[in-house]
Amino acid sequence: MTPERYQRIRDMLAKRQTDLTVCLENVHKPHNVSAVVRTCDAIGIHKVHAVWENQYRVRSGTAMGSQQWVNVDTHENVTDAIGALKAQNMQVLVTHLSDKAVDFRDIDYTKPTAILFGQEKYGVTDEAIAMCDQDIVIPMVGMVQSLNVSVAAALVLYEAQRQRQIAGMYDVQHLSEEECQRMLFEGGYP
Amino acid sequence: MTPERYQRIRDMLAKRQTDLTVCLENVHKPHNVSAVVRTCDAIGIHKVHAVWENQYRVRSGTAMGSQQWVNVDTHENVTDAIGALKAQNMQVLVTHLSDKAVDFRDIDYTKPTAILFGQEKYGVTDEAIAMCDQDIVIPMVGMVQSLNVSVAAALVLYEAQRQRQIAGMYDVQHLSEEECQRMLFEGGYP
Ligand SMILES: C[S@@+](CC[C@H](N)C(=O)[O-])C[C@H]1O[C@@H](n2cnc3c(N)ncnc32)[C@H](O)[C@@H]1O
Ligand SMILES: C[S@@+](CC[C@H](N)C(=O)[O-])C[C@H]1O[C@@H](n2cnc3c(N)ncnc32)[C@H](O)[C@@H]1O
Repeated sequence: MTPERYQRIRDMLAKRQTDLTVCLENVHKPHNVSAVVRTCDAIGIHKVHAVWENQYRVRSGTAMGSQQWVNVDTHENVTDAIGALKAQNMQVLVTHLSDKAVDFRDIDYTKPTAILFGQEKYGVTDEAIAMCDQDIVIPMVGMVQSLNVSVAAALVLYEAQRQRQIAGMYDVQHLSEEECQRMLFEGGYP
Repeated sequence: MTPERYQRIRDMLAKRQTDLTVCLENVHKPHNVSAVVRTCDAIGIHKVHAVWENQYRVRSGTAMGSQQWVNVDTHENVTDAIGALKAQNMQVLVTHLSDKAVDFRDIDYTKPTAILFGQEKYGVTDEAIAMCDQDIVIPMVGMVQSLNVSVAAALVLYEAQRQRQIAGMYDVQHLSEEECQRMLFEGGYP
């Protein structure tokens, strides 16, 4: 590995936000999953969560290599997934239009946060909604009822990035040195 | 048409922003084009511009019907497209990483604005960059060099929506009554 590449990976690892994540509930289309993982890499998410009914892997094409740098934890079902996030003391937000939903920009994302996104056709399940702490929505003034899921994820994540940047959360390293070494070892030699 | 549907269309038309648009330069993948059009509908864009080397139509699947409500103006080449936008006194921004690029959130989107997005693989052409007023960039702290184009478009457009909402620009109707009647006539009967 060249010194430049080593430094580039270290700089990236130094900005990873370990207490910010997303959970995809049965998001199926590979180009959507890949676009979400790519955005996660771009704003410094270290690990994403996914619930898939069937075996699945992030397709490398659209993810542009980001799947190498963002870890994906898969869960058997959404109850397990949300349980694991809550066990890490995260506020679990769910993207879902309801009477109780608030504008996604009214949330404090400097807190440990996980955001749940739903399936392309049916959205998040009732089971998941019942377990989450807060419904959030991206306002729309057009004729369509929803945005593409990778678009929705990017909007929420960049709002989190904006708030965390202002709060100086990208200026301190969150990952342990051990985890940095593991990432350098696994990802350093393509 | 039911009175409810009529009212829903009128409400949508009343919020359309005629002086905000995007221009896609050879964006090819149908799911990307559709996702952009769907986001445009969601934030109230009335017309988008596209430069396509070959004949092309917005695929209806991923656009979720938004292609019925967002007009697409196609141009033969990017010089014509940017020329047409400048003739409408728009500031023409180009999404492109360069020394002169500013953070996309530092722009005043309450001005008449067009934003240019580039092809999935090669980005915007040098020809286009040379004609535009300002390079803008969405900051990234990961390993990948760029975001998916429909993700990038959504981030810039929702920043514009945020600024315009605060400025009260969704509270006054921009479309002429004549154009509203045309849209009601063409789109009202699916
Ligand atoms: C295409 S939408 C699902 C639409 C589904 N008919 C529904 O009502 O939920 C797929 C996912 O994108 C996200 N999403 C789409 N539009 C959204 C919006 N305006 N606000 C918040 N999340 C949204 C949600 O995670 C949603 O589960
Ligand atoms: C996949 S990118 C093209 C990447 C190409 N290698 C380049 O250097 O431009 C496709 C389009 O998405 C938009 N885009 C992607 N990431 C962006 C970012 N970080 N800032 C601004 N625009 C971006 C731009 O419109 C770009 O032309």
